[in-house]
Amino acid sequence: MHDECGVVGITSTENLPLKIYYALYSLQHRGQESAGIATYNNGMKLRRGMGLVPEVFTEEDINQLNGKQGIGHVRYTTSGDTNLESSQPLMVTHQKGRLAIAHNGHITNSMEIRRQLEEDGHVFSTGNDTEIIAHLISKHLIKTDDITNALKRSMKKLKGSYALTILIKDKIIAVRDPHGIKPLCIGKHKNGYIIASESAAIDTIGAELTRDVNPGEIITIQNKKLKSHQLTKKQNAHCFFEHVYFARPDSIMDGKSNYECRLQIGRKLGEKYPVPNADLVSPVPDSGITFAIGYAETSNLEYAESLMKNRYVGRTFIMPNQGMREDAVRLKLNAVKSNVKNKEIVLVDDSIVRGTTSKRIIKILKKAGAKKVHLRVGAPKIISTCHLGIDMADKNKLIAHNATTKEIKQKIGADSLKYIKINEMLDAMNINKNKLCLGCLNEKYPVPKQNTKTLQTKIE
Amino acid sequence: MHDECGVVGITSTENLPLKIYYALYSLQHRGQESAGIATYNNGMKLRRGMGLVPEVFTEEDINQLNGKQGIGHVRYTTSGDTNLESSQPLMVTHQKGRLAIAHNGHITNSMEIRRQLEEDGHVFSTGNDTEIIAHLISKHLIKTDDITNALKRSMKKLKGSYALTILIKDKIIAVRDPHGIKPLCIGKHKNGYIIASESAAIDTIGAELTRDVNPGEIITIQNKKLKSHQLTKKQNAHCFFEHVYFARPDSIMDGKSNYECRLQIGRKLGEKYPVPNADLVSPVPDSGITFAIGYAETSNLEYAESLMKNRYVGRTFIMPNQGMREDAVRLKLNAVKSNVKNKEIVLVDDSIVRGTTSKRIIKILKKAGAKKVHLRVGAPKIISTCHLGIDMADKNKLIAHNATTKEIKQKIGADSLKYIKINEMLDAMNINKNKLCLGCLNEKYPVPKQNTKTLQTKIE
Amino acid sequence: MHDECGVVGITSTENLPLKIYYALYSLQHRGQESAGIATYNNGMKLRRGMGLVPEVFTEEDINQLNGKQGIGHVRYTTSGDTNLESSQPLMVTHQKGRLAIAHNGHITNSMEIRRQLEEDGHVFSTGNDTEIIAHLISKHLIKTDDITNALKRSMKKLKGSYALTILIKDKIIAVRDPHGIKPLCIGKHKNGYIIASESAAIDTIGAELTRDVNPGEIITIQNKKLKSHQLTKKQNAHCFFEHVYFARPDSIMDGKSNYECRLQIGRKLGEKYPVPNADLVSPVPDSGITFAIGYAETSNLEYAESLMKNRYVGRTFIMPNQGMREDAVRLKLNAVKSNVKNKEIVLVDDSIVRGTTSKRIIKILKKAGAKKVHLRVGAPKIISTCHLGIDMADKNKLIAHNATTKEIKQKIGADSLKYIKINEMLDAMNINKNKLCLGCLNEKYPVPKQNTKTLQTKIE
Amino acid sequence: MHDECGVVGITSTENLPLKIYYALYSLQHRGQESAGIATYNNGMKLRRGMGLVPEVFTEEDINQLNGKQGIGHVRYTTSGDTNLESSQPLMVTHQKGRLAIAHNGHITNSMEIRRQLEEDGHVFSTGNDTEIIAHLISKHLIKTDDITNALKRSMKKLKGSYALTILIKDKIIAVRDPHGIKPLCIGKHKNGYIIASESAAIDTIGAELTRDVNPGEIITIQNKKLKSHQLTKKQNAHCFFEHVYFARPDSIMDGKSNYECRLQIGRKLGEKYPVPNADLVSPVPDSGITFAIGYAETSNLEYAESLMKNRYVGRTFIMPNQGMREDAVRLKLNAVKSNVKNKEIVLVDDSIVRGTTSKRIIKILKKAGAKKVHLRVGAPKIISTCHLGIDMADKNKLIAHNATTKEIKQKIGADSLKYIKINEMLDAMNINKNKLCLGCLNEKYPVPKQNTKTLQTKIE
Repeated sequence: MHDECGVVGITSTENLPLKIYYALYSLQHRGQESAGIATYNNGMKLRRGMGLVPEVFTEEDINQLNGKQGIGHVRYTTSGDTNLESSQPLMVTHQKGRLAIAHNGHITNSMEIRRQLEEDGHVFSTGNDTEIIAHLISKHLIKTDDITNALKRSMKKLKGSYALTILIKDKIIAVRDPHGIKPLCIGKHKNGYIIASESAAIDTIGAELTRDVNPGEIITIQNKKLKSHQLTKKQNAHCFFEHVYFARPDSIMDGKSNYECRLQIGRKLGEKYPVPNADLVSPVPDSGITFAIGYAETSNLEYAESLMKNRYVGRTFIMPNQGMREDAVRLKLNAVKSNVKNKEIVLVDDSIVRGTTSKRIIKILKKAGAKKVHLRVGAPKIISTCHLGIDMADKNKLIAHNATTKEIKQKIGADSLKYIKINEMLDAMNINKNKLCLGCLNEKYPVPKQNTKTLQTKIE
Repeated sequence: MHDECGVVGITSTENLPLKIYYALYSLQHRGQESAGIATYNNGMKLRRGMGLVPEVFTEEDINQLNGKQGIGHVRYTTSGDTNLESSQPLMVTHQKGRLAIAHNGHITNSMEIRRQLEEDGHVFSTGNDTEIIAHLISKHLIKTDDITNALKRSMKKLKGSYALTILIKDKIIAVRDPHGIKPLCIGKHKNGYIIASESAAIDTIGAELTRDVNPGEIITIQNKKLKSHQLTKKQNAHCFFEHVYFARPDSIMDGKSNYECRLQIGRKLGEKYPVPNADLVSPVPDSGITFAIGYAETSNLEYAESLMKNRYVGRTFIMPNQGMREDAVRLKLNAVKSNVKNKEIVLVDDSIVRGTTSKRIIKILKKAGAKKVHLRVGAPKIISTCHLGIDMADKNKLIAHNATTKEIKQKIGADSLKYIKINEMLDAMNINKNKLCLGCLNEKYPVPKQNTKTLQTKIE
Repeated sequence: MHDECGVVGITSTENLPLKIYYALYSLQHRGQESAGIATYNNGMKLRRGMGLVPEVFTEEDINQLNGKQGIGHVRYTTSGDTNLESSQPLMVTHQKGRLAIAHNGHITNSMEIRRQLEEDGHVFSTGNDTEIIAHLISKHLIKTDDITNALKRSMKKLKGSYALTILIKDKIIAVRDPHGIKPLCIGKHKNGYIIASESAAIDTIGAELTRDVNPGEIITIQNKKLKSHQLTKKQNAHCFFEHVYFARPDSIMDGKSNYECRLQIGRKLGEKYPVPNADLVSPVPDSGITFAIGYAETSNLEYAESLMKNRYVGRTFIMPNQGMREDAVRLKLNAVKSNVKNKEIVLVDDSIVRGTTSKRIIKILKKAGAKKVHLRVGAPKIISTCHLGIDMADKNKLIAHNATTKEIKQKIGADSLKYIKINEMLDAMNINKNKLCLGCLNEKYPVPKQNTKTLQTKIE
Repeated sequence: MHDECGVVGITSTENLPLKIYYALYSLQHRGQESAGIATYNNGMKLRRGMGLVPEVFTEEDINQLNGKQGIGHVRYTTSGDTNLESSQPLMVTHQKGRLAIAHNGHITNSMEIRRQLEEDGHVFSTGNDTEIIAHLISKHLIKTDDITNALKRSMKKLKGSYALTILIKDKIIAVRDPHGIKPLCIGKHKNGYIIASESAAIDTIGAELTRDVNPGEIITIQNKKLKSHQLTKKQNAHCFFEHVYFARPDSIMDGKSNYECRLQIGRKLGEKYPVPNADLVSPVPDSGITFAIGYAETSNLEYAESLMKNRYVGRTFIMPNQGMREDAVRLKLNAVKSNVKNKEIVLVDDSIVRGTTSKRIIKILKKAGAKKVHLRVGAPKIISTCHLGIDMADKNKLIAHNATTKEIKQKIGADSLKYIKINEMLDAMNINKNKLCLGCLNEKYPVPKQNTKTLQTKIE
């Protein structure tokens, strides 16, 4: 449903491709389509492939990638082609040398920049955002011969969301867009630094989280020294959905523990939307768990697991014909009879996007004998799409688009339905409204959408 | 660590291989090494392979297996060869026809039976337990021409644990050893019956759990009719470890909900072994979750997740050298900082076998800033191995073998350590001691070990 | 079209699995479906798999198979199931120990023997010929405790064709049926012996061909000593088709060089069936080459290649719809224009079975401008099937079944067609008619077909 | 040893990706490393992969590539990286649209052109010859908006060998370098045209060879119309090695049948370098066959196969340690005893590059009992490398580099050795010396080597 990318950059005084491998593995939830690592050791090496991190890299790959500086990427595309050529890091060469780049985000004026570069004579192989960024940086690097200056000039052009890690010879550069829409943070280990989309990657390699990369900041790491260059800041607009759903609960982002955010939202839900007569509170596993724990506390209801997730059900699956479609749902989630039969259940989930999963889960619980199912949702009503990097489905497939809560309740078959309100969520998270991007909730985006009609002419 | 097999048998008036596929998928936790399905449709068809259920069967396989009766098997070997020839179901032919058989358990006198069959001239292809059972049944089937009689005679010989599903033409037969060591239960769906190791498989295909197959019972299903033949019962000896760890929490076995067993043990642990000053209670995910929920209730402590499990870490994995071994542990389980730093934590796990995992987890928590870690364990001290189907590791690798709780506590680095006591566990589960096999806890086994020295001569 | 198996057995004072691998690779033309190796080294090891020799065995497999005695098998099934369980060598255990067996041939009374063994209580896993032979030998081995006696007794029962290599501990045994239908020969290398279906395998491992295993001979090799036991011989009936098509031209069988046989037949064809006005003689590559060389000599015509074979066209292939079917044929064989356009060509092939390939090839030549195409065939008219191990297609799919040469000529579009006559072939090969099995040519078989109707009752 | 690429371009009024697949399959000998197809159908589609043609393309791939114009490529790299990114066709986009390009050859001034393009701001992804050509063409296409003009300008810059097929929307363009170093020819089928490296590809899809693309000619095909634009011609310099070894014998190139070239060279060898007392003439299969047929004719010796090639020995292979290295050679080529033992053999091969294979083969024949082995070679002494697209090995690995024929004879163990002389070869082929590139024979190249030292600075 919701997908993005994860980026990593590490420096060390020791050989590090296995550290990048572990860091990417810890960010696997941010992209399962492709993975790649680029390292430097008197020349640049690159290994990319389709699939999960352990599928893409063999032990031999890791050995051959030996180097003391490197970047990595995991990807689920939200634009561009779903093929190997579009996997990252992307490596390009230009007059002044070579650079590799890994990108998380979505450039809203990519077509416009591309047209300008094409007018300068640039020729593209894939035409995706990352290649456009790489060409733009290269163009300025040729002129200025200084990566910080080249990035400053490039960032004046770039609109949208981007968290980048860049490798140039033995230097790692990290960049975050001026609104800080996508997360990016800095860690320190005994032999160097790590830049990563989430602090869980920093934990995984045994490093310590230092701080976030600031919105509009350019970080350069070389010879164990980290330098920072800060562009004029814009209004912060961190994606609230990272905190609430997309990122790992054990990650800390822009100063907030995602676990705490979810727990406090759950508590707030329990306080504001209790169900006094309910028998128990249960999460939709796994994303609803932390919310449900919080809800149980403030509602004084018993916390119990009423649905068990089959840990082996992955991507491959023989789908049945219509008649057995329900078996497929039960294979993924099965009711715990003793917690469901004749019970009035408060079911807690992180968010509702299309509503199809919610509907199926409620059906399973009802069929297993649930007396009532009350749904409580940790994210406010999602009424619009995201053009800044989260794959939310088409607007008219969003169940909350042009629908009242009552209508949604009926569609999914819940006995009651309550979403957290925007202000309640902000209150629970203890974040100022102005610090977050809430575009999919209120249609106020930090960066407007690209006017695709005027600019995009078909390329045959 | 602990491994076994899962068996299934289904009859229907409609084509059913996809139902068997779903049922096996729901039992995947019982064996990830190989899977197989045999069906009948004017002749028997068999498809077996190494790997997980979705890896073994393609859609074409399922189509070619068309039939209205069938059995299935998932396996992780605890004896015999780890190769395709030893995967199940096993299909054999004899004077009177053909039979396919799927087995969960361990025959303790297999070598003796094999010697006797060899003296009768039997020739074996694999020599594993299942082939010995198949030959023994065939031998009696040739004589008696009646499967129930053949099974009765065979069961007089067989010692150890066994839950079998057998396919002979359009007939499904299910058998459970006289002690009922291994689980086996019966479900009914609108077009027929299902026999399965666990009720979760029954749920998955949309059937209703009817009852358990009784210890020493032979069930025959043909033409939508189910017949039962009961052998003289012996003392029940259901494996307690199925309830506490091995089987799914959403399965009901021998009348007991595994979820309830684990929850009540957790509650008992909280009642008997509280830690009044602790800040929170956390499970070792996933197996400790239900116990921890129960513990939190009776101890009046906050339930919180202090460890996050990476859902993508599966079987394939590049293992690092010594220096990065800890990264590999953190990749699987990462601390949630806000629940760990400066906290006194009660950590709840289902059982301790070797103790290596417990030691590593406590180390992670301490490194993440935990003030104290108190470990509470839902299974009593495991002091001996299992020769009836659970792979417990060698006796001298069991951390509780010849060690006091105090010694174990020190080895694993816990600040305090409490195991549930046997009687407390039985009390919590509300089961009579005489109904369970507690061999690994008290070395009292329902069936003695095979004297391998006298019987097993090396076969070259 | 025509397929069989290849067997190998090697002894050495050194580790030999790689020698078996090479020997099997040199016999790959005898079976491309599966391959297997069994070796002995204080216990027996077995590795079997589906596919070509280099696909089945990895370097690790070969290392793990270490041993100083071993047997091997390549297979294309002419009976039984086409799955891994039916691949060979087959390993069985019985009262007195273990044996592995590799078989080339077809047992005509297998069903009868199976019934008798079943009456003795034998239970089968696959029911194919090889398992039946293994059980029969085991049965007698249990009684006599002596492999030579067990084989003598077994051979009294076995009817049909068989060339066997058997491994029992550090002993290799080779057996050839009393008619010598299937080839089997003995070679000597500096550290031991090799038994193989063809002498090309002996050449490949650098050994010297000693002699053929005699029809009805049992060879036992242990401790560098070779012993022979000769059963009462029956009339020799070596398969003529091995000499003419199936075996490698560089193999020597039953005293005859296959290359010489084919060359002499070609010369005879040229002598008896010349085409005085033809421009050139061309083979159908590869099987017609040696015949065509001989033909060119005695007919005093120029030898030229008029068809080029694409060496990369193997098993996998996207087949086109009807409209492009000819492209697929041309992809395999393309005309050499300068040798075809306006030429009168004598085309020489080894044999015609169904006639479909001949028809297509003549069409290609005509389309490329050939004035006339005269076909000369190195094997007499194949009018009947083989039940002794060569897969000849159904009788009524044989183009020469119930058809005159004239009718065949018209069907395939040749301008003239001549088969070698049986006596001419025997004359050319310099072999007495009584020494060969010519069953598919004259329906006189050394062993009658199995009466499948009376014996084979369906096993469900 | 010697490797290159193959290119194809087809237009039709019907869907054609399967035609491209067949054409590429027929050119598989020109490159086994990667394959790719690009087609046009209201947008461009591209599918590339590592491996043989049937491994790269599934039936689904072919279906998805539907279109009526397309180009294809098979590749074995002689420069650049051996990875997927460097496989072809290469597709790029620029200001005026998109183009796909397939290239056979080697650009000698690629580094210089790249530097110039980089100075214009071009950024490269792979930096290989094909990307440089694509950028160069794009640069001029942006300026001129006309592909013929863009190509004319590009060809003024490009030095070296190139045969290109290009796809722009529904237009196929073919280009051959001004010396015609690499082959490229035109065929016509009922619904359109085909451009291909060899006429065998034209035959395979059922088309008729029309003529060669002329050196320095630009062919444009659109709407069933073929237009030609001829640049000022330079001295022709067709690669002689294509005729003698690299291309298929059934291909016709620059007006010459390769089969005829090889046959006539063989005849000339027989005439000039007979061995009156020899028993027979044999080819080194497969490349020596046509030469040997010719030699046998003029020398009046018997043509016989003394070496059999194992058709199953492909790319995968377990290599033995030193002790069994000879087995590996014999696995590929085995002596036909009856044609070798006590025989004086004239062995005919197409060429000698490193000499290692010749040495091994002679050893096999001697070991099999050959009295004498006289080697006759269809290509003159190869004394220098090729920098125009044939991979000849390093200069000092060429056995004829700085060695007399007598020295070579001794190194390889032949009893006599004769190469065809350059003039004899030209005479036999009936080609004027000035029409061919004989650089590897006489070090006179049509295009000088790139001065890599001054231009190539390391890119990190």
